[in-house]
Amino acid sequence: MQSWKVALVQMRMSSEKALNIERGIGYIEQAAQAGAHMICLPELFASPYFCQREDSQLFDLAENYPHSETVQALQVVAKRTHTVLIVPIFERRAPGIYHNSAVILDSTGEVAGLYRKMHIPDDPAFYEKYYFTPGDLGFKAFDTSVGRIAVLICWDQWYPEGARLAALHGASIIFYPTAIGWHPAEKERYGAAQHDAWRTVQRGHAIANGVYVAAANRVGREVDSVTGSTLEFWGQSFIADPQGVLLAEASAENEEIIYADVDVRHIETIRRNWPFLRDRRIDAYAALTNRFLD
Amino acid sequence: MQSWKVALVQMRMSSEKALNIERGIGYIEQAAQAGAHMICLPELFASPYFCQREDSQLFDLAENYPHSETVQALQVVAKRTHTVLIVPIFERRAPGIYHNSAVILDSTGEVAGLYRKMHIPDDPAFYEKYYFTPGDLGFKAFDTSVGRIAVLICWDQWYPEGARLAALHGASIIFYPTAIGWHPAEKERYGAAQHDAWRTVQRGHAIANGVYVAAANRVGREVDSVTGSTLEFWGQSFIADPQGVLLAEASAENEEIIYADVDVRHIETIRRNWPFLRDRRIDAYAALTNRFLD
Repeated sequence: MQSWKVALVQMRMSSEKALNIERGIGYIEQAAQAGAHMICLPELFASPYFCQREDSQLFDLAENYPHSETVQALQVVAKRTHTVLIVPIFERRAPGIYHNSAVILDSTGEVAGLYRKMHIPDDPAFYEKYYFTPGDLGFKAFDTSVGRIAVLICWDQWYPEGARLAALHGASIIFYPTAIGWHPAEKERYGAAQHDAWRTVQRGHAIANGVYVAAANRVGREVDSVTGSTLEFWGQSFIADPQGVLLAEASAENEEIIYADVDVRHIETIRRNWPFLRDRRIDAYAALTNRFLD
Repeated sequence: MQSWKVALVQMRMSSEKALNIERGIGYIEQAAQAGAHMICLPELFASPYFCQREDSQLFDLAENYPHSETVQALQVVAKRTHTVLIVPIFERRAPGIYHNSAVILDSTGEVAGLYRKMHIPDDPAFYEKYYFTPGDLGFKAFDTSVGRIAVLICWDQWYPEGARLAALHGASIIFYPTAIGWHPAEKERYGAAQHDAWRTVQRGHAIANGVYVAAANRVGREVDSVTGSTLEFWGQSFIADPQGVLLAEASAENEEIIYADVDVRHIETIRRNWPFLRDRRIDAYAALTNRFLD
């Protein structure tokens, strides 16, 4: 399609998987009724953000792919609502190999692709390196019946390399299912600067690549039932255009759906006027595969 | 040094080279008296922005390097004021090979390095591909007696690859001497979005890499004496910290000097809290050396 409507679902999660899926489906149906062609859920939307502690029992939350009950339930919804869905899952690939993944479902209900989170963070209360094997499928774009898209996940947001490769693969929009939050003790002092940096770096990816960028975040507090560790997900999901202009932005407190239109003609116009992709020095970038140049 | 004061000179240029150099030196002396340790001038500061038309006579503006009168004059100033200077020049390297370059002068007056603009734009009234051979020295960082820095130039601002390589080379701050302006006919409709994109993408480089970023722009109108083509340089030079926070920003109308402190301990703190460099997927970035992945 030349243009289509995108929706991001910003939601809270409970400890009950069935309820999270049911509520996610409710939001998808609402977005579809509002005319959305493509709908993205937050990172690991079927569960609480379980990475607040390291606990081997929590691998039980993972689902086998492609025989994932979450994916199968959402395939039915994609077909019924005739929408493209970005469905984040905790993927069990083999004993001892688990990924933080997202399945792209076409509006027929068929699987259009799988992305496995490439950049894995590890910070206090975000113990992702314990749970997630780094993705091995690389940075890609996926054709759907609506348009060509890329999916990256949360920590990937901070890496210009991932966004660039998605754009070079021809994506018109990069979706970032997200679970980013404040440590409550840090919020007052650092919260505003952290949020602004997060939004700015992603708007920068939109600008540098002439693509739409859409980040679907969680919202609300989640308290780890064992440690008492608390995260306050900051919501503020947003969609930016290929010049970094904010087209839609959600609140910091509420569940909501935000919408914006993707227009591939606008991408072409922006890239004609600011032809950054024309002038890349591909002869001089090889050192980007180094850890550090000391 | 653990911390040092940076100054950016935002200025207008006349058609007289001697006057531009004299005025640039005046601003350097003023900044040095205010305590600056490191001072950056705008792109091609010794001349008007001559790229508004393609004219082979204008190659006469170029200077041989290292025997450049501009550089030699500024070496005296660097030594006298005991400051590190970033001195943009139109470099004549050989007949038919000219570069848009910047010389880094140490506070002893000695040359600390040379950068040749890698990404060369070409847009109406910015006919740089006619004048400037793309740089062949790559993306680097330079040790000075004050600190380790990188210099990139104007159009490089839009390329995350250049900023990343500068950071991997260990730079604490990236300077961007700049000559960016509005076409007067576009200013009202597009001016604000263009400026915001320009600042945002560079703040994004600061955030993604945990480095300071400093852009020293021209200000004021320049009218091409032959074609009547006019550019309105938008000023708004700025310095951002490693989290993208604006530390100083100049006006859109006036010549001025802006100042901010670089603190390498702040870089370390930011990078400890957001360890992006730790998690880069250097095994998966090789395709960045492709033009497009079709």
